[in-house]
Amino acid sequence: MVIQTRIGLAGLAVMGQNLALNIAEKGFPISVYNRTTSKVDETVERAKREGNLPLYGFHDPESFIHSLQKPRVIIMLVKAGPPVDDTIKTLSVYMEKGDCIIDGGNEWYENTERRQKAMEEKGLLYLGMGVSGGEEGARHGPSLMPGGAFEAYKYIEDILLKVAAQVPDSGPCVTYIGKGGSGNFVKMVHNGIEYGDMQLISEAYDVLRSVGKLSNEELKQVFSDWNKGELLSFLIEITADIFGIKDDKCGEGYLVDRVLDKTGMKGTGKWTVQQAADLSIAIPTIASSLDSRFLSGLKEERVEAANVFKSSGITDILADQVVDKKMLIDDVRRALYASKICSYAQGMNLIRAKSIEKGWGLKLGELARIWKGGCIIRAIFLDRIKKAYDRNPDLSNLLIDLEFSKEIIDRQSAWRRVVCLAINSGISVPGMSSSLAYFDTYRRERLPANLVQAQRDYFGAHTYERIDMPGSFHTEWFKIAKRSNM
Amino acid sequence: MVIQTRIGLAGLAVMGQNLALNIAEKGFPISVYNRTTSKVDETVERAKREGNLPLYGFHDPESFIHSLQKPRVIIMLVKAGPPVDDTIKTLSVYMEKGDCIIDGGNEWYENTERRQKAMEEKGLLYLGMGVSGGEEGARHGPSLMPGGAFEAYKYIEDILLKVAAQVPDSGPCVTYIGKGGSGNFVKMVHNGIEYGDMQLISEAYDVLRSVGKLSNEELKQVFSDWNKGELLSFLIEITADIFGIKDDKCGEGYLVDRVLDKTGMKGTGKWTVQQAADLSIAIPTIASSLDSRFLSGLKEERVEAANVFKSSGITDILADQVVDKKMLIDDVRRALYASKICSYAQGMNLIRAKSIEKGWGLKLGELARIWKGGCIIRAIFLDRIKKAYDRNPDLSNLLIDLEFSKEIIDRQSAWRRVVCLAINSGISVPGMSSSLAYFDTYRRERLPANLVQAQRDYFGAHTYERIDMPGSFHTEWFKIAKRSNM
Repeated sequence: MVIQTRIGLAGLAVMGQNLALNIAEKGFPISVYNRTTSKVDETVERAKREGNLPLYGFHDPESFIHSLQKPRVIIMLVKAGPPVDDTIKTLSVYMEKGDCIIDGGNEWYENTERRQKAMEEKGLLYLGMGVSGGEEGARHGPSLMPGGAFEAYKYIEDILLKVAAQVPDSGPCVTYIGKGGSGNFVKMVHNGIEYGDMQLISEAYDVLRSVGKLSNEELKQVFSDWNKGELLSFLIEITADIFGIKDDKCGEGYLVDRVLDKTGMKGTGKWTVQQAADLSIAIPTIASSLDSRFLSGLKEERVEAANVFKSSGITDILADQVVDKKMLIDDVRRALYASKICSYAQGMNLIRAKSIEKGWGLKLGELARIWKGGCIIRAIFLDRIKKAYDRNPDLSNLLIDLEFSKEIIDRQSAWRRVVCLAINSGISVPGMSSSLAYFDTYRRERLPANLVQAQRDYFGAHTYERIDMPGSFHTEWFKIAKRSNM
Repeated sequence: MVIQTRIGLAGLAVMGQNLALNIAEKGFPISVYNRTTSKVDETVERAKREGNLPLYGFHDPESFIHSLQKPRVIIMLVKAGPPVDDTIKTLSVYMEKGDCIIDGGNEWYENTERRQKAMEEKGLLYLGMGVSGGEEGARHGPSLMPGGAFEAYKYIEDILLKVAAQVPDSGPCVTYIGKGGSGNFVKMVHNGIEYGDMQLISEAYDVLRSVGKLSNEELKQVFSDWNKGELLSFLIEITADIFGIKDDKCGEGYLVDRVLDKTGMKGTGKWTVQQAADLSIAIPTIASSLDSRFLSGLKEERVEAANVFKSSGITDILADQVVDKKMLIDDVRRALYASKICSYAQGMNLIRAKSIEKGWGLKLGELARIWKGGCIIRAIFLDRIKKAYDRNPDLSNLLIDLEFSKEIIDRQSAWRRVVCLAINSGISVPGMSSSLAYFDTYRRERLPANLVQAQRDYFGAHTYERIDMPGSFHTEWFKIAKRSNM
C-alpha cells in the first residue's frame, strides 16, 4: 500500500485518537502510529466506524514515517517528559531535513525549548502546541496553541485552522503563539486559570449548598440560569449537568454527593504558581485553587481536625444564617464573576511578564480570542477580555479596563457580602476572598508596606525610599529608639 | 607573625564582620579575610576598638589559610550563588584533606548539596549554615542552622554553642539540623515565616490605623502592650520602636509615614513558595505575604487604579465604620495571633514534607527551640510550638494541638470580625484572610472538592473515588446529561 498522507500522529491514547479522527474528518489524510499496536488497530477501526475517514494505521515507525508526504509533519500526543524524548528518538531517525515534529502534550516549556534546539541541529523543525478541550475538544474542535518554528506552523496552518474549534465572528481557535516554548507556556497558564475557575465554581456551590441549603435540583437550575448570562461557559454548563445526574451505584440520590472530596492534579497548576513567583507576579486566586487541591487530598487529616474542633463547638457550619435564597443566588453570581475577572487579570499578567522576559511578543487579546471556543475555559467572558485588549493592548491590568472596572463596581457589594457571609458561616472561600484581597490591594494607593520596609531597614539595613524625596535612605532605628526610650 | 587561630571567616560585609567579632569575643582566636582588603583592616580596627578581641586580618588567601590550626574551618559570608563558588575556589587550593568550609549565606539548598559533593571528592567537609538575626544578631548572638557533614559540625560545636544566642531554660540557639542542604532549607522556610509575620503585623497596623484611626503614638503604645503578652517577639518590639521615631528629614511628623510603601525582597520567600508547590503543601499565609510584596512594588499602577475606582466611589476606605477602639485593638491582637498559628503550621509542615522527601529526619520541636532567640522571628510563641511537638512529635498540624486548638477557638470570633471589618472597609488583609481560609479548609470534613473532581472526570475522564465504596470510578457524565436533557 503506497500512501502519501498529509500528516502523522503518534501516541494513540484517547486524546491522540480523537485528534487524529478530527484531522481525518476535516479531509486531511493522516497516518497514525502507537508503540502498543492494538491502539493503532483500535483507531483504524474507529475511523471506519465514524465515517470511513482517511486514516491509515502503521505498526512500525519506519513505514509510518515513510507514508508521509514531505516535508513530513508529525504530531505527538504522549505523556510529557521522558516519553516525549523517547518518541522523538524513535521517529527522528527516519526523518529528513525540513521535517517537523509537534508535541501536543502539556509539556514544561523549557523541555520544548531544549528539544527545539536539539532538533534544529539536525535540520528538523519543532513545535510545542498546547491542546485544550479534553477528549471532546480533541475530537470535535479544540483550542490550539502552537509555538516554536514559524515555518513549521505555516506547513500545517491549513490543517489547524480547520481542526480547531470554530467560533462565529471570531474564527478558528488557533493562532501562531510565538517563538520557543511560548505555546506550552500559554497552555500552562490556561490550565492555571482553569484551576481558578473550577475553584471559584466549587466555592459558589459550597455557599449555595451549605449556607443557602439549595438542593441539587435547585443547584442545577441556578447553574443553568447562570449559563444564559454573563457566566455562560463550558464549566458552568457541565456543572449544571453534574447536579442533575443520579447515582447509578447506590439506589437513590445524586452522584455528586457520593463523589469523594479529593481533587487530583497534574503539573501545570503547580508550574503556573512557581513561574508567577519567579516573575514577581501575584496570582493569589490561582494559587488558592492549587492550595485547595492540596488540602482536599488530606481527607483523613481533615476528618480528624473536624473532630477536634467539633468537640469545642466549631462545626462545619458555624451558625444557620437567615438568608434570602434569591438574593443569595444573585450575590453569589456577582461574587463569582468579580472573582473571575481577578483570576484572569492575574493569568494574563503572568503571560505578559513571561513574554517580556523571553521576548516572545505575545498578543494577549489574540490569546483570549482562541480561548473563546474549544478549550475548557471557553466562555462568553473571553470576548470581553479580547475587547479590553483591543481597546488598549498595553492595559496594565484587566481590573482597570473601562468595562471591567464598571462590572466590578456593580458587583463589589455583593462580593463583599458573600465573602463575609462565608467567613461568618465558617465556610472557606479562598478563591473569592483572595480575589477580593487582590482587588483591594491593587486599587490601593497606599499600602501598609511602608511598615514592612521600615522593619527590613531596622533589622537588615535594607534601606527604604521616601514618599517626599528621591533617593535611598537608611535610618539607625534601633539606636534612635534606644535613645528616646531612655 | 606565626598565629594558629581556631577558625577563619571570609567575606567581611557587615554580617561577616559582626559574626567574626562575636566569635572573637567568645574567646576563639579568629582569622579574617576579604577580597577587598580595606574591609579586612576595617574589621581589625573594630576588633581593637570593641575590646582588643583576638581577631587577625589577612590580605591574601594563602596566609589566611595557613594561619588556621588544623583541621581548618572557614566560615564564608558572601553573596549566595556564584560568589560562593568563587570563594570556595580561591580558598580550597590551600586547604587539605579533612579541612572544612561553612557557607553562612542564604544559599539555595541544592547549591549547597552540589558543593558538598564536589568538596567530598577532594576530601574536604562542607556545611551550609543558616544564620538569622540580622546585623545585631550576628554580633551578639544569632540563631544558627548548620546542616551537612556531621563531623564538621562537631569540629566547631563548642564555638557555635557560645556564639549563638542564649535563651534561659532552653539553651543556645543552635543545633545540628541534618544532612545535605537541610540547614539552608530550614533557614529558607524561617525566612518565609518571617515574611508571613511581617505581613500580618502590617495588616494589623493597617486596620488599626485606617479603620481604627489610631495615631502613631497610640500604635506605639498598642504594640508595646502586645509585646508584654502572647505576641512578645522581636518583630512586635521593633514595630513599637518604629512608630515612635520622628522624621529627621522634614520637620515634624513620624518617619514611618514618609517611608514609601514599596517592599523589597530577596530570593528566600520566593523559593519557599515554589518548594511548597513542589511538595504539595499549602502555605497561603506565606504566599500572600510574597504577593503583597509584589503588589507593593507596583506603586504607579496602584495609584492609577486608585484613581480609576475613586471616580466611581470606591475609595481607600469604603465607609467609616463605628468601632470601639479598645475592642478593635483586642480583636486585632487575637486575629493576628490566630493567623500566626496558621502561618507557622504551614511552614512547619513544609519543613516536614521536605525532610521526608530527603530523609533528613528533621526534628520540628528542636527547630522551634533554636528560633526562640537570636533570629528575626524569635518570640515567646516558639516555646509553645516546641511544647506542641514535645507532646507529639508526629503532630500532623499545629492547628490540632491541644493548646493551639484551644487558643484558636478562643480567638476565632475576633478573627472573623476583623477580617469582615477589613473587607467591608475595603482594606485588604490577605494574610489574615488566607490564614482564616486555611483554618476553615483544614478543619472541614467535607469540602466542595467533590464538584471539582466530578468536573475533571466529566471533561478529562480523570476518574473519581466515592465516599461509600472503595475503587476508582468514571462516569459518562456528558452522555447521561444529554440523554436526560432530551
